[in-house]
Amino acid sequence: MKFKILPFALALLLIINLTELAYSDDGYRLWQRYELLKDPQKLQQYRQNISGVLIQGTSPTLTVTRQELDMALSGLLGQNVKNQSEITANALVLGTPENSPLIKSLNVTSKLAKLGTEGYLIETVAVKGQKATVIAANSDVGVLYGTFQFIKLLQTNQDITRLSISSTPKIHRRILNHWDNLNRTVERGYAGFSIWDWHKLPDYIDQRYIDYARANASIGINGTVLTNVNANALILTPAYLVKVKALADTFRPYGLKVYLTARFSAPVEIGGLKTADPLDEQVKAWWKNKADEIYTYVPDFGGFLVKANSEGQPGPQNYGRNHADGANMLADAVADKGGIVMWRAFVYDNKVPDDRAKQAFTEFKPLDGKFRKNVLVQVKNGPIDFQPREPFHPLFGAMPQTPLMMEFQITQEYLGQATNLVYQAPLYKETLDADTFVKGAGSTVAKVVDGSLHQYNLTGMAGVANIGNDRNWTGHLFGQANWYCFGRLAWDHTLTSEKIADEWLRMTFTNETAFLNPINKMMLQSRETLVNYMTPLGLHHIMGYDHHYGPGPWIKDKKRADWTSVYYHKASPEGIGFDRTATGSNALAQYAPGVQKLYGKAETCPEPFLLWFHHVKWDFKVKSGRTVWDEICHRYYSGAAMVGEMRKTWDATQSYVDAERFNHVKMLLLIQEKEARWWRDACVLYFQTFAQRPIPAGLEKPTHSLEYYQKQDPKFVPGI
Amino acid sequence: MKFKILPFALALLLIINLTELAYSDDGYRLWQRYELLKDPQKLQQYRQNISGVLIQGTSPTLTVTRQELDMALSGLLGQNVKNQSEITANALVLGTPENSPLIKSLNVTSKLAKLGTEGYLIETVAVKGQKATVIAANSDVGVLYGTFQFIKLLQTNQDITRLSISSTPKIHRRILNHWDNLNRTVERGYAGFSIWDWHKLPDYIDQRYIDYARANASIGINGTVLTNVNANALILTPAYLVKVKALADTFRPYGLKVYLTARFSAPVEIGGLKTADPLDEQVKAWWKNKADEIYTYVPDFGGFLVKANSEGQPGPQNYGRNHADGANMLADAVADKGGIVMWRAFVYDNKVPDDRAKQAFTEFKPLDGKFRKNVLVQVKNGPIDFQPREPFHPLFGAMPQTPLMMEFQITQEYLGQATNLVYQAPLYKETLDADTFVKGAGSTVAKVVDGSLHQYNLTGMAGVANIGNDRNWTGHLFGQANWYCFGRLAWDHTLTSEKIADEWLRMTFTNETAFLNPINKMMLQSRETLVNYMTPLGLHHIMGYDHHYGPGPWIKDKKRADWTSVYYHKASPEGIGFDRTATGSNALAQYAPGVQKLYGKAETCPEPFLLWFHHVKWDFKVKSGRTVWDEICHRYYSGAAMVGEMRKTWDATQSYVDAERFNHVKMLLLIQEKEARWWRDACVLYFQTFAQRPIPAGLEKPTHSLEYYQKQDPKFVPGI
Repeated sequence: MKFKILPFALALLLIINLTELAYSDDGYRLWQRYELLKDPQKLQQYRQNISGVLIQGTSPTLTVTRQELDMALSGLLGQNVKNQSEITANALVLGTPENSPLIKSLNVTSKLAKLGTEGYLIETVAVKGQKATVIAANSDVGVLYGTFQFIKLLQTNQDITRLSISSTPKIHRRILNHWDNLNRTVERGYAGFSIWDWHKLPDYIDQRYIDYARANASIGINGTVLTNVNANALILTPAYLVKVKALADTFRPYGLKVYLTARFSAPVEIGGLKTADPLDEQVKAWWKNKADEIYTYVPDFGGFLVKANSEGQPGPQNYGRNHADGANMLADAVADKGGIVMWRAFVYDNKVPDDRAKQAFTEFKPLDGKFRKNVLVQVKNGPIDFQPREPFHPLFGAMPQTPLMMEFQITQEYLGQATNLVYQAPLYKETLDADTFVKGAGSTVAKVVDGSLHQYNLTGMAGVANIGNDRNWTGHLFGQANWYCFGRLAWDHTLTSEKIADEWLRMTFTNETAFLNPINKMMLQSRETLVNYMTPLGLHHIMGYDHHYGPGPWIKDKKRADWTSVYYHKASPEGIGFDRTATGSNALAQYAPGVQKLYGKAETCPEPFLLWFHHVKWDFKVKSGRTVWDEICHRYYSGAAMVGEMRKTWDATQSYVDAERFNHVKMLLLIQEKEARWWRDACVLYFQTFAQRPIPAGLEKPTHSLEYYQKQDPKFVPGI
Repeated sequence: MKFKILPFALALLLIINLTELAYSDDGYRLWQRYELLKDPQKLQQYRQNISGVLIQGTSPTLTVTRQELDMALSGLLGQNVKNQSEITANALVLGTPENSPLIKSLNVTSKLAKLGTEGYLIETVAVKGQKATVIAANSDVGVLYGTFQFIKLLQTNQDITRLSISSTPKIHRRILNHWDNLNRTVERGYAGFSIWDWHKLPDYIDQRYIDYARANASIGINGTVLTNVNANALILTPAYLVKVKALADTFRPYGLKVYLTARFSAPVEIGGLKTADPLDEQVKAWWKNKADEIYTYVPDFGGFLVKANSEGQPGPQNYGRNHADGANMLADAVADKGGIVMWRAFVYDNKVPDDRAKQAFTEFKPLDGKFRKNVLVQVKNGPIDFQPREPFHPLFGAMPQTPLMMEFQITQEYLGQATNLVYQAPLYKETLDADTFVKGAGSTVAKVVDGSLHQYNLTGMAGVANIGNDRNWTGHLFGQANWYCFGRLAWDHTLTSEKIADEWLRMTFTNETAFLNPINKMMLQSRETLVNYMTPLGLHHIMGYDHHYGPGPWIKDKKRADWTSVYYHKASPEGIGFDRTATGSNALAQYAPGVQKLYGKAETCPEPFLLWFHHVKWDFKVKSGRTVWDEICHRYYSGAAMVGEMRKTWDATQSYVDAERFNHVKMLLLIQEKEARWWRDACVLYFQTFAQRPIPAGLEKPTHSLEYYQKQDPKFVPGI
């Protein structure tokens, strides 16, 4: 038939035009858009070098690998690539030595030996005299990871003619934490409601569950905690376990393991026991039985995540026991099945401490070495609570005998929530690259977390998910970049923020440099911009009460002092900032001497942490030569002004982005600018009541009075 | 260039293959899918007969009309159809006599005169010697409605060569009621959460708002009540009115007017008054000012919907006033701006009545003729509460001097909620076609509602929406058919259920008769099937407590007797059913003599309403010759068995439906079958405890014991 000889590119030209008319892009496909590549030379190269696909093996994981390749290649290359069982020139060969005689016959065994269970290699090799591209690993899921990496090479227009790539994750457990409640509300969720439709499970498997697993596998995330750390014991009952099983079955081919949050008082609430004391034999037996029961539903169940004795959650302290007692009891219950316990270090004592920043260290440091081998203590990146900027958590330099799991927050509780564009890789990297000095200079937090510093055998990184049932998953399209960068950094924390942004932008939008350069730069600056209009110079915890939306530096007189703002900024007619040196709370003493030296003196303390560690007078001179008052003002104003620049930068990209996504970001940036000015005006006016100094010349007047801002009382803020 | 001469159909063949690989269909596009038509002859006819589009006029409504045509024609015909300003052969000419000299020059003025403000005509005519297709109306929105009708002709493969169509809505106000709360939960919502993202309004206009307006306009819905009848006064404050304005501005080009629910106690709650007494001058003034304020935001604000003195909502009775006092006070507040008040007749007295079915009549009948001209009394289709089957509400035969608005429930509170396939046109039609006999035989409910019987100048039909933020809008794909049929019947209640299903199926799936015939039949039977496995023979209100999910015929001893099941089914060792004749509650006396005659005797009462109106002995013989006990059993079993047949019918359509939507329905039908059996077993076992008779021979044993079913306690059921 005649159409077969039609030049393919021309037919595709028609296709693109028509599909662009028919489909608007709602962002659902994330970075896995698989649209026809636009660079004709690269397209030709890829078509020539991928003549067919040869996968030996039929496991569920290899089956979904094959499906993903079908979808990706037909989309990106605009043509179906045939499956074949014999080697031909330019074939793509995938498999493990175990299930593929072809892979076994290649000279990659020694290379594979270094790659562990999840690593992979991608190499251009000769197979039976034919040039081929090989994706090989020691496990099927390694092959899947390699396949996603290979697809990414195409999506980002890389040369694939002479490949020699190998990669192994630096951290074992790369896990999303969903703070999702069983009624589908999401605590601190700003992207709609929970994607887990518990009511229709187990019989209804939403396509979204599969796409969720695909997206996670594509960035190496290998675990998901389905439920909120503020836990409901019902998830541990059979009515829900059968639903958990359905999700676990769906995720399994993608290497994604399911974990649950364990409510510490579950033995009382659903078990009928009188106590949840972790040293009580009945309690131990109950948890062991419960764990065994869970494993009948989910044979590869990952284990428990626990928030105990924090913000009202029950825990071992209710029974006079400590965190190790609680964690170890649960760890024993899952140990024989290979399960782990992630025990959170985010704790609140009933007594309000002199410095909230010291709490976790105080409670956990004495327990170092007391935890079972299958326990990870999960520590937030900073000692307060996911602020726009915090110094690294002192526990990272204090627990050489206890594997510490990093907990980052991907959802933007304190980072502008539903509406602000904030690329978080620089925030994550700042913590990971920070030096604990615990074994001398170079003892970075990353080396603690990846186990290389203290030789942990179990390592982990958790990200509190920003995923909801909004059509684009993350509410803000650029929130997808934070899910993405979390996964990439959990796999390899040495990647740069810029490199990760580049990957994400190319896959999500376009390979055009005229788009990539300005938008990448905008992303890289976005976190510092937000710090400036929210919490410059080390200020922290001055947001709206409870919902945490908008500015609230005036918050005081609440149930607990450490839930107020004045507790943290300590503004007074003399000055501003929290003295955490020896003259103050001495939280700094929880760090190694190298860190103490770095931050110890206001005059030399890096400015990003000035008011975190020091209380300084309003006329204290900072590096710019300005007084701290003037500098605060300049930061707030320049932060807000930068959002105006972001809007201009985005507006200039209109020709590179489809209308729906372009307008989506454009509208949100307008809201962000309004919110940045709201923060700016409210905070400057409030701090001015102490500083009693004018807003520096040249800066515009705030739009409203302080009273106006203090009266703002937003209702039904999402995420609570 | 060579590709220009490529036969277009062949190029499109390629396109379809590739897009089908790249895109799965999530149902988001509803019945507006605009995919390339598959019938080559029709495609040719349409291309030949639509050579260009000529719209004179630039109003927002005509602009979106043009956009819709662009999208539809490029999708359906696979080619762009040019806009033109001069008439040519086979042009599509759109407009009103007022803004289009061309339309004015045609001989359609007298025809248009009969079509009112919203009607349209579509005619094949000669214009300046050229054959053309004209879509004309007296208003721009009429042109838009005609355009959607024209697009539908193409979608459903109708001949367009000799068109002569005219249509006018039979009912003025065709309105969706959203029971959406400001925190985005949806009362009785089973499709996720509210599509109104109040937090990001007014600056963020979700594409979904536009697509919502498009969908509604396409079926003639011209109003939307944004908020729950269980109202929150905050919606009336400036912080929310600015958001309401943003939605109204988005909807306006599509002829979709915004209404709000008014919390009767708002003058106290947000107005600072001490009373909400409708006869208090301050209260009247407050509402007048509030209405004026709303009109400054939304100049074409439609008016208020009010639930008062019902289920805990405040109302005029709190101040010793009646419903007319309350409604008229609000009606006066909006009258000068053309607003209306929809005052619901779904009321609860504080005293539990002997028969809940009589309540509304008792309260409203005495008020007939006492309401302002801009008040509609909104009456549910039946006297209890949206049961699978109810007789028509007695008020429809009792208020000749008061315009009555029909309230149907589209969301499936009592119809299997999130998971059951139930096509509701037969239910709506059953009520609309019912004869009130109020002006003799033929006085159908439809004639009451459309104003023709009592010459109401104001008419309306409300549908409680089944829309949420699920990707496919309605949770169950077939729920879209209920949104669709509500709109179609509100426009023209004489349409048959079959015709509407046919339209919807063709647009949503395919024009293939091998698909259409069995699936249309399945839809038409689905409601009767559900009645059989839930509430056969006139049983009603025997569902689970509070959440209304699953069977609960045993519910008793609750706060109010009329919130229990035993109150309604009155099963005893003697018999079953609610005697609503003169020997019982005499609710039947609220109907006209013709209706009384129809239902008055158990022996002649139509079986669908037997146990609604009569208490009969277990051995009472029904038409089948069975005892009522045996008949109940047979109905429950045949209903559940029919769902098995539905599954087979659906499974046979696999080749006509894309994988995602096919599997979606398939999984839900499996759940529906489980739930139908649950209803069957639970109800049969429960009623057997009274009947003390065996389940008839040949029917399988229930799977579990009655105790098992009574113990079922589903948690976190959606919609509450």
